[in-house]
Amino acid sequence: MSTIRPYCFNAGPATLPYEVLKQIQDNFFNFNGLSVLEISHRSKEFDEIIAHSKALFIELMNIPDNYEILFLQGGASHQFAMIPLNLMDKSADYVITGHWSKRAYSEAKIIGDAKIIFTSEYSNFSNVPKSYQIQPTPNASYVHITTNNTIYGTEFHEIPDTHDIPLIADMSSDILSRPVDVSKFGLIYAGAQKNIGPAGATLVIIRKDLIAKSYRNLPNILKYSTHAENNSLYNTPPVFAIYTMFLVLQWIKKNGGLKELEKINIEKAQTLYNEIDASCFYKPNAQKESRSNMNITFTLPNDDLTQKFIQEAKERNITGIKGHRKIGGIRASLYNAVTIDDVNVLVSFMKEFRRRLDF
Amino acid sequence: MSTIRPYCFNAGPATLPYEVLKQIQDNFFNFNGLSVLEISHRSKEFDEIIAHSKALFIELMNIPDNYEILFLQGGASHQFAMIPLNLMDKSADYVITGHWSKRAYSEAKIIGDAKIIFTSEYSNFSNVPKSYQIQPTPNASYVHITTNNTIYGTEFHEIPDTHDIPLIADMSSDILSRPVDVSKFGLIYAGAQKNIGPAGATLVIIRKDLIAKSYRNLPNILKYSTHAENNSLYNTPPVFAIYTMFLVLQWIKKNGGLKELEKINIEKAQTLYNEIDASCFYKPNAQKESRSNMNITFTLPNDDLTQKFIQEAKERNITGIKGHRKIGGIRASLYNAVTIDDVNVLVSFMKEFRRRLDF
Repeated sequence: MSTIRPYCFNAGPATLPYEVLKQIQDNFFNFNGLSVLEISHRSKEFDEIIAHSKALFIELMNIPDNYEILFLQGGASHQFAMIPLNLMDKSADYVITGHWSKRAYSEAKIIGDAKIIFTSEYSNFSNVPKSYQIQPTPNASYVHITTNNTIYGTEFHEIPDTHDIPLIADMSSDILSRPVDVSKFGLIYAGAQKNIGPAGATLVIIRKDLIAKSYRNLPNILKYSTHAENNSLYNTPPVFAIYTMFLVLQWIKKNGGLKELEKINIEKAQTLYNEIDASCFYKPNAQKESRSNMNITFTLPNDDLTQKFIQEAKERNITGIKGHRKIGGIRASLYNAVTIDDVNVLVSFMKEFRRRLDF
Repeated sequence: MSTIRPYCFNAGPATLPYEVLKQIQDNFFNFNGLSVLEISHRSKEFDEIIAHSKALFIELMNIPDNYEILFLQGGASHQFAMIPLNLMDKSADYVITGHWSKRAYSEAKIIGDAKIIFTSEYSNFSNVPKSYQIQPTPNASYVHITTNNTIYGTEFHEIPDTHDIPLIADMSSDILSRPVDVSKFGLIYAGAQKNIGPAGATLVIIRKDLIAKSYRNLPNILKYSTHAENNSLYNTPPVFAIYTMFLVLQWIKKNGGLKELEKINIEKAQTLYNEIDASCFYKPNAQKESRSNMNITFTLPNDDLTQKFIQEAKERNITGIKGHRKIGGIRASLYNAVTIDDVNVLVSFMKEFRRRLDF
């Protein structure tokens, strides 16, 4: 029944470190004879998993004391609602750099006066703004950005300075891929299913002074304060997803932490971009200075070639590279669990494919 | 490292069928070389898991055509908010039979005019109402009940008739334990972590005419219509939790379906209640006609004996029997995955324990 593992470039849910997966499989019944699926969220075992996961996030991301770490459910989509419900007073500013930031904005618009202060839609989302292009409006409760745009393959390489206005970032697709200065943010959130673990858990890092904000009369489950006061145990948390996240965090630490991962991630992305830039056969979607190190998107000269490329890649056990239906073409997602060897296999195939066509 | 599996009576997250757990472990990498944690929620494999899970729910619960099945996140606690946000117009009626129905009520109260139409708090939640005791108020959008009360050990054995007013039921702790007439309900919901699967998935069965109700301007993630229109794929679902649920549903079917499970569940509960009733040593919390077949709660003559009981049970590898802090004593949860053999081991120990003390 077992098959060789593919070179998997899934956009999310994405591939996880094989070492972590083996750990889950091998230790499946190692909770006093129970599986991790069966342990109580009030047990000592799970208390330790939560406590160690928090400590690892603090250590790896260098999170200052005045921040709270929450493990929630519902993914980034749920945060699109929770953020304005909790934190938007008169208005809030949104920076639109792709599908997901548009979604965040349109959900906020249902709740209150959300404003677009920048959009790269005119360039088909091929770039993110320069810092000087982000000017908060008066009365904005926060500025919202999406640091990495999974579909279009762009990424913020400098964090804008929004001065006294809290900066809120959806980091779903580049969290833990590089060091970030957490103190520049009011709130950071991320669905787990790319760099943190499996689908079903959501990370929220929130500055403590923002937790107490309460502009609306909300049911408790929708309030950050509820989850902060209850150590993310107000309701039964997704135990298994958090356990897997904990193993991923240990794996990151073992592999040198975020500085080391950033080096590898840059090398991986650079290897792929070098091949893209080596000819005019592969056309990158993102403008050079906005290129993502996580999701590399490009097109081939026509759709037939794209189909052929995907098919031949599959024959070589390279999977998960079909571009999102919004822009077509190819997308290779190079999250932490993707190795430089995986990238080299893809790049060798890309070279061979174009050379066969005399490019 | 491996330990013998305990006789586990956890209240939730609860024990799962060993056969299902072995299946997960043995097939961990059987998705074309990937683990189930890594597959896309847009993949053919996951489409099949969703489709088959729905079909199994329809078959096992005999769900009529005019109902939609949704797989959400956030557990029952999230439904405590979603239900009134979506479905409460002028007011709604709540039947209070324990901690969780109180919680459902207090969350609804934040949103609108929630009314208590019955409470058994005066009897320390030792009973559920007779049908005639439930009289909806004029203008109520729905009547909310909790069919099984995990903490107090009571369960509805007849479903009240609320006529034209939709009946909404939190079935988190007795779903799939017995056949129910779904057509009597407007909405049924359940956190997965007792009888369905691991923590992290939530089942909602909703009558189609209720999906369209929209009394408030809600963000999309909080609307039932969003999830119904998107086949539960509006946002990334908890893939692994749904996969496990799918395996549990197959296991239930293989074991004869809900009628067969009900027989076994009654036998299990009866075996335990017989021992409780055999002397005055163990004192049941629930009144006889309200006794739950899922969570059996009782006290011992004093706290020292309770501690001794829990300790000696542990030495016999019997775990998860400590009563909820709200009522103390002992609670044995007999969900589907608990076998009659497990119950016999517990009952033998109970007999021995009381006889030693001359009861």
